[in-house]
Amino acid sequence: MPTRWDEPITEELNKVEEEIRRSVVSRESLLTRISLHVISSGGKRLRPGVVLLAHKAVGGSDISKIVDMAAAFELIHSATLIHDDINDGGRTRRGRESAYRQFGVQKALVTGDFLFVKGFQLGGPQDRRVVNYLADACTKMAESEILQWQYANDPDTSIESYLKIIEGKTARPIEAGAKVGALLGGGSSRQIDDLGRYGLNLGLAFQITDDILDIVGSEATLGKPKGMDFLDGTPTLPLILAMDDGTKGKRISTLFKKKRKNHNDLEEALLLLSKSDALDSARKYALEFSKKARGCLRSVPQSVYKDSLQALAKAVVHRDS
Amino acid sequence: MPTRWDEPITEELNKVEEEIRRSVVSRESLLTRISLHVISSGGKRLRPGVVLLAHKAVGGSDISKIVDMAAAFELIHSATLIHDDINDGGRTRRGRESAYRQFGVQKALVTGDFLFVKGFQLGGPQDRRVVNYLADACTKMAESEILQWQYANDPDTSIESYLKIIEGKTARPIEAGAKVGALLGGGSSRQIDDLGRYGLNLGLAFQITDDILDIVGSEATLGKPKGMDFLDGTPTLPLILAMDDGTKGKRISTLFKKKRKNHNDLEEALLLLSKSDALDSARKYALEFSKKARGCLRSVPQSVYKDSLQALAKAVVHRDS
Repeated sequence: MPTRWDEPITEELNKVEEEIRRSVVSRESLLTRISLHVISSGGKRLRPGVVLLAHKAVGGSDISKIVDMAAAFELIHSATLIHDDINDGGRTRRGRESAYRQFGVQKALVTGDFLFVKGFQLGGPQDRRVVNYLADACTKMAESEILQWQYANDPDTSIESYLKIIEGKTARPIEAGAKVGALLGGGSSRQIDDLGRYGLNLGLAFQITDDILDIVGSEATLGKPKGMDFLDGTPTLPLILAMDDGTKGKRISTLFKKKRKNHNDLEEALLLLSKSDALDSARKYALEFSKKARGCLRSVPQSVYKDSLQALAKAVVHRDS
Repeated sequence: MPTRWDEPITEELNKVEEEIRRSVVSRESLLTRISLHVISSGGKRLRPGVVLLAHKAVGGSDISKIVDMAAAFELIHSATLIHDDINDGGRTRRGRESAYRQFGVQKALVTGDFLFVKGFQLGGPQDRRVVNYLADACTKMAESEILQWQYANDPDTSIESYLKIIEGKTARPIEAGAKVGALLGGGSSRQIDDLGRYGLNLGLAFQITDDILDIVGSEATLGKPKGMDFLDGTPTLPLILAMDDGTKGKRISTLFKKKRKNHNDLEEALLLLSKSDALDSARKYALEFSKKARGCLRSVPQSVYKDSLQALAKAVVHRDS
């Protein structure tokens, strides 16, 4: 992401990184190796960034506790990445072979569990509200995985259903991170709510942009082949919008409905899609959520951290990877 | 298990049951259904039982908190059962088709994650020591899964390695449950340590007995086919002892080493094993750990709960399922 939204929290993010690496040390070195395979593959650290910024934006200064929480969110995110790849047959992730492909399903599955435990160990011994924010977000992630499969290869998936899925999958955990950051920073109820809504809208903008990049991105910067959502039968916003677009849309629907899609299907669908307004319309949705996110920060006083939250909301939609 | 070890905590165990069922309610009814498939299949509730008894044995009376913790241990145990079955290809569990066979790997995997989260949600908002006991035990479970695969089909697995594996897999979580129960019950450091050692030895006795039952048990009472450990290449104590026993042992080793074992191999191995002293020797180990467990309770004052802990240590070795 181009904007240096993380400038004012560089030091804290380094501490989060140390904490994560410290957490995954195990007497079974393979667990550490598989964990680091995922963790050190250069994720965006969006989730810990939001936790830290929300904390600082409300005047929080309990760095040690908030670094633990930020690490907890990233560890749990890494756990879900490993399990998702097993479930979706994802072959590459951030330019690397996915964990289960490199180390086998069994070991990847157990490493995911290990990372879950490490995340909850860091995030656990806290206020009941904190644990509930974290756990409720994880519950929604699991629920939205189940929901997503109900719409696999379904060209009639509504935008509403799509938004419900990405809300659970991506936006709720970011919302929870923002709320936890604000709560532990001593924010008012109003600030906690507002930062939560910021996180929710940020997450939606982020995921819609991800889904657009799956179509228009370059494989080199994405770190994975493009068109995976189409091939997997995952109905993303640009696909849903394109399938709703006249004769071209009908044809994309027909291709999308196929349970086994091949690369010719993908090429044809991408070509038709590039001639439709779907990508532009999807971008408008992303921009709208980004704007909404920025509009949620009124109760947060001016500071470099608030500036960063604003910059982040722009950065998630203006990026090429 | 024949002895009614759970008599003095019947009411609390019912509350644990309610709490577990309440926890797995989800807006995605499939998650609830798969969770209940595992939870309602009649497990022994050994883990929550130990948490409750340890609590009460040291004079604890915070029923609501300890019921939550007991439910947490059982939820996490259920999560690992689902993931273990995926990893080991376990076809039946407690007389039912295993979750991944009935609902598919993807949905079972996510349900396991869901149960982990629910367990940590109940066990989370506590004293840091409590969270660490719980999480450290989960870490050891993951580590021992990895360790176990290193010894798959290996007839030279030592008794020491076997004990290390079952310690992590079964005994540490029970140890953690006992310590958490005692800690939250206001037990002294001595009592917490002693009940922890009780749980550890109880777990070893329990798992060795399980491994014996895998060979001598009846399929009807076990709820799964027998000889699964042999077929899976899991070196259990009776197998290790039998393989160390002269010419018969050599032959069992040869069969055990095969990566794909068939039912003739199993029949032959079981016949040879039944003629060796391995089962009797393995039983002696189990009895020894059971005795050790009972010997750990000196710092615990006399009560019906202490009686139950003693009865439980006997019951885990004297059972046919």
